[in-house]
Amino acid sequence: MKISKDHPRYRSLVTRERMAAMVEEGNVSTTGLIAHGRGEAFDYLLGEITVPEAGLAEKVAAALLLRAKHPVITVNGNAAALAARELGDLARATGALVEINLFHRSEERLRKVCDFVEKEMGMKVLGREQDAVLEGIASDRARCTSQGLLAADVVLIPLEDGDRAEAMVKAGKKVISIDLNPRSRTTLAAEVAVVDEITRAVPNMITWAERLGERPEEARAVLEAFRNQDNLAAIMRRICVGLDQGAADRSER
Amino acid sequence: MKISKDHPRYRSLVTRERMAAMVEEGNVSTTGLIAHGRGEAFDYLLGEITVPEAGLAEKVAAALLLRAKHPVITVNGNAAALAARELGDLARATGALVEINLFHRSEERLRKVCDFVEKEMGMKVLGREQDAVLEGIASDRARCTSQGLLAADVVLIPLEDGDRAEAMVKAGKKVISIDLNPRSRTTLAAEVAVVDEITRAVPNMITWAERLGERPEEARAVLEAFRNQDNLAAIMRRICVGLDQGAADRSER
Repeated sequence: MKISKDHPRYRSLVTRERMAAMVEEGNVSTTGLIAHGRGEAFDYLLGEITVPEAGLAEKVAAALLLRAKHPVITVNGNAAALAARELGDLARATGALVEINLFHRSEERLRKVCDFVEKEMGMKVLGREQDAVLEGIASDRARCTSQGLLAADVVLIPLEDGDRAEAMVKAGKKVISIDLNPRSRTTLAAEVAVVDEITRAVPNMITWAERLGERPEEARAVLEAFRNQDNLAAIMRRICVGLDQGAADRSER
Repeated sequence: MKISKDHPRYRSLVTRERMAAMVEEGNVSTTGLIAHGRGEAFDYLLGEITVPEAGLAEKVAAALLLRAKHPVITVNGNAAALAARELGDLARATGALVEINLFHRSEERLRKVCDFVEKEMGMKVLGREQDAVLEGIASDRARCTSQGLLAADVVLIPLEDGDRAEAMVKAGKKVISIDLNPRSRTTLAAEVAVVDEITRAVPNMITWAERLGERPEEARAVLEAFRNQDNLAAIMRRICVGLDQGAADRSER
């Protein structure tokens, strides 16, 4: 379908078509598309912008990644489809490793997504050989690498499911989420919850990583001052105000 | 994927798998899956129940269909996948015609969805031969039938897009929507907006159609007393309260 650039929701529609194409290619699962739709709804309630609280969380997330000993960024099918290149840049800016972790896992799909992400990022990723398991998860999704996720002290988990997010916290890792649902289990489990659309969030995090990399004192201060729960509560209030006011004109159907 | 019946969100997960299977069969488009995801997010904010305001709108919708001269129910791919059988029962209970209208239209898909819906409903539907257009829409989606949508005075439009909903209102039709987004253009265009999940909404509407069919005075009174905007405002307040309170434990990721 051809989308007019004049359409008020051009960006969202282009992304949607991109996701549909990624299903055809086998990088995104069909239920991954449904998850993307859920994200769209929450983004719509936020006004499809990086709200100030999200901007703050992105700064704090960058600081946390910079100060980590062994930071890892996990990438699933949706994250790969939407922001592989940007996540690669963030890994370079923070010294993090990248590990592929699929929700709907098959050997074939795992290879396919690894190939796609390595090409997009221009760097090697972990996850082809999963030699470890994350405690507390019963399914295939427990699988990970000993070099990457298992050894990590700080993990960035964009668009991750709740079971895995909670298992990572239980395993003692500091978790940074990127998830548009302000009440999801992933968001609630995170030490730093970024409630923002991934293609807006990651470039902001790269900018902060570059700036704070040169100002370690500021990075430390930003981390100490951050109150994740207060930040989330402010986002919830913002959504309510939006529901009461003129969210209507941004709606699409 | 096998889903445990113990899973707190069993129903939602089964529906999700059903939608994914419907994509394989060609009844549902990939962007239809994304739309389903948006619905899931709003349903989650409503607590995945028929809230009292939705229950009232379902009663009023049944009354409006019963009192119509030429009621029509439009069915797209998502509506067909989720509730074809129930929508057929509603058509029988209210004397409405059924017309197929796809968002992503192709001759092949149109035939496929018509076949599927006729088999599920056990009755003939309109839409194979589209001999009319709805004014005010530029695309293929303007196409409809002269016998059905064009002649209708009351139209039930489950999961419909905003352009078509607004065009129907401009064409002088009384529109009943079923849409989980309380601020969508479809919801805002409707005379009676049902903000509920389709598989919960339609059976309720059937029950009301059967009861009110025997009580025409009550049907008239119910219609007269209904204030759609007040009803929507109450739903919005309900979502805000849910965001502030314990929606967390119902979350899935």
